[in-house]
Amino acid sequence: MRACRREPVPYTPIWLMRQAGRYMREYRDVRSKTTFLDLCKTPELAAEVTVTAVERLGVDAAIIFADILLILEPMGIDLEFAAGEGPVIHNPVRRPADVDRLLEIEDVSALEFVNEAIRQTRSALRPDIPLIGFCGAPFTLASYVIEGGGSKNYVHTKRLMYDDNGAWHAMMSLISRGLAKYLNAQIAAGAQAVQLFDSWIGCLGPDDYREFVLPHTRSVIENVTPGVPVIHFGTGTAALLELMREAGGDVIGLDWRVRLDEGWQRVGHDVAVMGNLDPVSLFAKQDSLRKQAKRILDQAGGRSGHIFNLGHGILPETPVENVIALVEMVHEL
Amino acid sequence: MRACRREPVPYTPIWLMRQAGRYMREYRDVRSKTTFLDLCKTPELAAEVTVTAVERLGVDAAIIFADILLILEPMGIDLEFAAGEGPVIHNPVRRPADVDRLLEIEDVSALEFVNEAIRQTRSALRPDIPLIGFCGAPFTLASYVIEGGGSKNYVHTKRLMYDDNGAWHAMMSLISRGLAKYLNAQIAAGAQAVQLFDSWIGCLGPDDYREFVLPHTRSVIENVTPGVPVIHFGTGTAALLELMREAGGDVIGLDWRVRLDEGWQRVGHDVAVMGNLDPVSLFAKQDSLRKQAKRILDQAGGRSGHIFNLGHGILPETPVENVIALVEMVHEL
Repeated sequence: MRACRREPVPYTPIWLMRQAGRYMREYRDVRSKTTFLDLCKTPELAAEVTVTAVERLGVDAAIIFADILLILEPMGIDLEFAAGEGPVIHNPVRRPADVDRLLEIEDVSALEFVNEAIRQTRSALRPDIPLIGFCGAPFTLASYVIEGGGSKNYVHTKRLMYDDNGAWHAMMSLISRGLAKYLNAQIAAGAQAVQLFDSWIGCLGPDDYREFVLPHTRSVIENVTPGVPVIHFGTGTAALLELMREAGGDVIGLDWRVRLDEGWQRVGHDVAVMGNLDPVSLFAKQDSLRKQAKRILDQAGGRSGHIFNLGHGILPETPVENVIALVEMVHEL
Repeated sequence: MRACRREPVPYTPIWLMRQAGRYMREYRDVRSKTTFLDLCKTPELAAEVTVTAVERLGVDAAIIFADILLILEPMGIDLEFAAGEGPVIHNPVRRPADVDRLLEIEDVSALEFVNEAIRQTRSALRPDIPLIGFCGAPFTLASYVIEGGGSKNYVHTKRLMYDDNGAWHAMMSLISRGLAKYLNAQIAAGAQAVQLFDSWIGCLGPDDYREFVLPHTRSVIENVTPGVPVIHFGTGTAALLELMREAGGDVIGLDWRVRLDEGWQRVGHDVAVMGNLDPVSLFAKQDSLRKQAKRILDQAGGRSGHIFNLGHGILPETPVENVIALVEMVHEL
């Protein structure tokens, strides 16, 4: 929390995106007894995997176990997590008329299970470990809704964006209004900071980002409960950093494709940064891993306001002993 | 050719990466009678699809029909293009010992079919249409050799790179020596410019690029026959442009994730640039397409040394009428 506010800290804090995940045996044990969606929707289990990851790794923050796509269900999206295939949306939005059938999120009672997981996690966590809530950013969510799942080229998304400006902005606005309510409900339940994941924003250039994305992401961030730090994260953002900063956030997440010092310079030293180890570094020998971690800390240069993290989520096959070693290295270095 | 040398031109020249490809009926007709590898290895057919694309689209340059992976076969790599799956390498390099079994390319006689295709294309092409030869850049080729095909996270590639520096550099040097010979043979056969495709370089940050890639790409470019323009292209390179420039090239290829004016500024106005329309723009209505094309031309600002192109290859489902319309728009605008 202090690093989010760029206050001095005794050592660089570290947590890892997707730290409660498939690479960890304890997670797989819980997950093997249920489906992914049911795990998200059962507060006891979501809290359990959230807390276990923190205790096992020794990281300095927890992030609630959930999925960015959960908010789509109360919007009328038919969502399935097919085994081994990732998310599938059975009624994707393809034409302007499809946008009209999306439901406005009036309140987030349909997502009460997330709030309950946050309450249970908060009461089970060590008091000095902050709990982070999160959501997908408007563009990344829109891309799932339009493509019907993950995508390589985002053809449907960009076609709607370029050819039907009105429908695009209507959809992004509707998603953004829902997201602000969702984040504020998480905060009311006990989340002390929140993160927006714009994981697929890197498929856009700066001109498109400014026109089609920035106003919507900004509106979500502006509507977050005052005083709660917002982490604004994306990948493939090397040409977007100034604009992401303009959209908002107390902390800008950097992926590994930019140097941390250059990225920080570009977003400005009046915001904090989070990042930016390549998740693949965790597959290397610990000597190599240490070299990479040290390089990032050197680039941060001891400036207040750096939260160590990966540049994207932990990969499923990652050796857990290297994750634990990384946390120790960052604390020690 | 004049644009490569930053000389004045009457209009901005345009060609399109993968302009002879699956989106075009004439290509599919030829391709349906043979395998992809046999098409590459039959000079008459390779020349036919190369020339047909130029005539059908009205573009200002031809690029020889071939594949960046062809050079791997004489290196001892067992390569297959599996239907619908992309390239598969049956004996990937995973450990340092595997590097030792790669074969040095002493001469490029095993790739004579490419040279013959170039000769036939050159004699069939209109004399004022230049013919471009090409190869994969060392990193992109190494990633295929190590992963055994395409990859999402490049785990094997980066692990070898981080953990076995000696093996990595030995492999990159061997590939680079072969590439220089290959490009010079294409030039001797009639290629008037050559392009290095570093399609997957965007998975690396600048520090890794400098240490593990730059010296090798530079050695290929330095060894190209003097006087022949070199186009140095990559995707996801928003944080790498200055280093790509340092590695070399008379023309730097920009993808659509950077603004053309900012990208050109960063590589320097003393080199030419190529790009940078999002290939997905070709799926939009022609009004939207025109707006995007105009934006790029406006960013080039009439400066000599801009070659219009996509930011990556044409996608298979692209409507051919939009490709033809784009060529006309760029000439007209």
